[in-house]
Amino acid sequence: MKEGIIARYGSFLPVTEKTPALTLHEGNTPLIHASHLSEKWGIDLHLKVEGFNPTGSFKDRGMVLAIAKAVEEGSRAVICASTGNTSASAAAFATRMGIRCIVVVPDGHVALGKLSQAVVHGAEVLAVEGNFDQALEIVRQIAEDSDVTLVNSVNPYRIEGQKTAAFEVCDRLGDAPDILAIPVGNAGNISAYWKGFKEYHEQGISSRLPRMCGFEAEGAAAIVRGERVEHPETVATAIRIGNPASWETAVNAAKESGGLIDSVTDEEILEAYRELAGNEGVFCEPASAASVAGLKKHIQKGDIPTGAQVVCVLTGNGLKDPSTAMEAIEIKPKKIPCDKDAVLKAVQGEGERAYEGV
Amino acid sequence: MKEGIIARYGSFLPVTEKTPALTLHEGNTPLIHASHLSEKWGIDLHLKVEGFNPTGSFKDRGMVLAIAKAVEEGSRAVICASTGNTSASAAAFATRMGIRCIVVVPDGHVALGKLSQAVVHGAEVLAVEGNFDQALEIVRQIAEDSDVTLVNSVNPYRIEGQKTAAFEVCDRLGDAPDILAIPVGNAGNISAYWKGFKEYHEQGISSRLPRMCGFEAEGAAAIVRGERVEHPETVATAIRIGNPASWETAVNAAKESGGLIDSVTDEEILEAYRELAGNEGVFCEPASAASVAGLKKHIQKGDIPTGAQVVCVLTGNGLKDPSTAMEAIEIKPKKIPCDKDAVLKAVQGEGERAYEGV
Repeated sequence: MKEGIIARYGSFLPVTEKTPALTLHEGNTPLIHASHLSEKWGIDLHLKVEGFNPTGSFKDRGMVLAIAKAVEEGSRAVICASTGNTSASAAAFATRMGIRCIVVVPDGHVALGKLSQAVVHGAEVLAVEGNFDQALEIVRQIAEDSDVTLVNSVNPYRIEGQKTAAFEVCDRLGDAPDILAIPVGNAGNISAYWKGFKEYHEQGISSRLPRMCGFEAEGAAAIVRGERVEHPETVATAIRIGNPASWETAVNAAKESGGLIDSVTDEEILEAYRELAGNEGVFCEPASAASVAGLKKHIQKGDIPTGAQVVCVLTGNGLKDPSTAMEAIEIKPKKIPCDKDAVLKAVQGEGERAYEGV
Repeated sequence: MKEGIIARYGSFLPVTEKTPALTLHEGNTPLIHASHLSEKWGIDLHLKVEGFNPTGSFKDRGMVLAIAKAVEEGSRAVICASTGNTSASAAAFATRMGIRCIVVVPDGHVALGKLSQAVVHGAEVLAVEGNFDQALEIVRQIAEDSDVTLVNSVNPYRIEGQKTAAFEVCDRLGDAPDILAIPVGNAGNISAYWKGFKEYHEQGISSRLPRMCGFEAEGAAAIVRGERVEHPETVATAIRIGNPASWETAVNAAKESGGLIDSVTDEEILEAYRELAGNEGVFCEPASAASVAGLKKHIQKGDIPTGAQVVCVLTGNGLKDPSTAMEAIEIKPKKIPCDKDAVLKAVQGEGERAYEGV
């Protein structure tokens, strides 16, 4: 099998003979059958586990293409304003290509720990004395006025690369599913999946299109509220975005597909997060669990037909955000004497999970 | 392609028709060409990136088989004494099978944060008032006297599952490499790879056998020193083991294959760790980098022929141990005014990594 999305899906991507064969083996992520939840909910649920990507999130699919095209077009440096998955991914692929990655962040507003993944991949960090919007505006201007390439979500190659996840879902299932449920933050990913599903359908590779169901976090639900959220707040940091860049295309994806965009509370997100880890054995970022939380909400509303084939996208690896895991679960080890019989008695007693919840 | 090591390599494993088809899509991990290091060292270097496994380490290969066999044999609970990758993996597969996972740890000697991955997967934690050796002794006794299955490394299915990584290396390269370099802690993994390479060779699937080169951390180098290390110390926590369980088979693997077991310093480990993340774009656990550090040491000694095909095993995901990353790199963001020209000037100046090293 060819490795990486450029080698595998090049005929669907804006690549040329001159595009570098860049890959860190992104894509080809597992589609894991959620056997517990399928049985509980009477549906056929699959999890697209994007945390298996090289830097631990779906961003790698778009970033490999954005960086390869930047190099093809003569750029020797990329720039972004990001403190999370985007900068980690940009730094990994940039260093692989031997070019610079510059990350601009607002000084004093960012926990440096969030940047450790980007920094370990060799990113240069510039802290400007302003806020995040100002940092973003500056990197946009710099990309316009110099040969440094912007790899924030406005870079069109990002969506192109990300759509390959929809191809993989169809390739694996033999067709598109009935429903695709996905977290919505900046709204680029739902737009990318919809693009991918439509392209496969137009080429006759799949016979149908899924209903696209996107879920924002309630405290950052700009699309659901119909207005920009000035101070977005949610435990799901990866979708804590108050003004989604791909707002319109996301709304169109939901409308065209007969789907919806709805919101879920932090409580619902964390319940799904614990359920996925504690029953399915899949540990994702809190934001990822918004897809499963939203699905559950609409199953309870009676919107999802029994037996429906559903794919929930889990956008990032749980190891990305261990502090949320630690806060969401209260570890309560049972203290016992150092004695075989005492331990055996504890083992044979009622099993008790080491934390509250699930 | 079949998913998981039981489905893919069942004919080489002790499975029956009654073995559950358990998988979290472990295995099938990337073999990434290390283009920078290959050029620098004049060899053909590939990285077997085991951090892509479902819980982020190679342990998943052995654990899926250990848990599946436990269920096949009627067990409804597994037990281990572990605070790291083993317990995380055991908990994920156990919860997937709907059975209990009990983790016994020494009370007060373990940072609970280390257990978060196991706990989020529903493990029950028992803290005994003793040390680690006592905890291990207790779980051994309990497994002997009850129907709870021990999944620590003495469980023979662990090595069986782990040998599939050697099959994958041969499948991907078309034959065994010249040299296989691997971190050595408990010494089970080098033993497993060697078993896998020999089985493929005996069956005529590969035409040759690699030299097995294992590397311990200097502060925990029991095999190299020839004696148990009472108080092992190294930054590479995943191989901080003073009395390897598979000591003898590891020594045999090195001897039979014409390889070696050597040690590397923490400094050498961290240098390789930074080099992998900062130049190849691959972020691994510190312990994983021992394989590359050891290879470098022997390249400098002149032991490695020019052009040799080498596979270095990277056993775990860098996201498992972000605190080491943060300590190994000193993040130094450059503070500048919030002004496009100031940022552009910084960008156009000499690129400066945000941390010392590499």
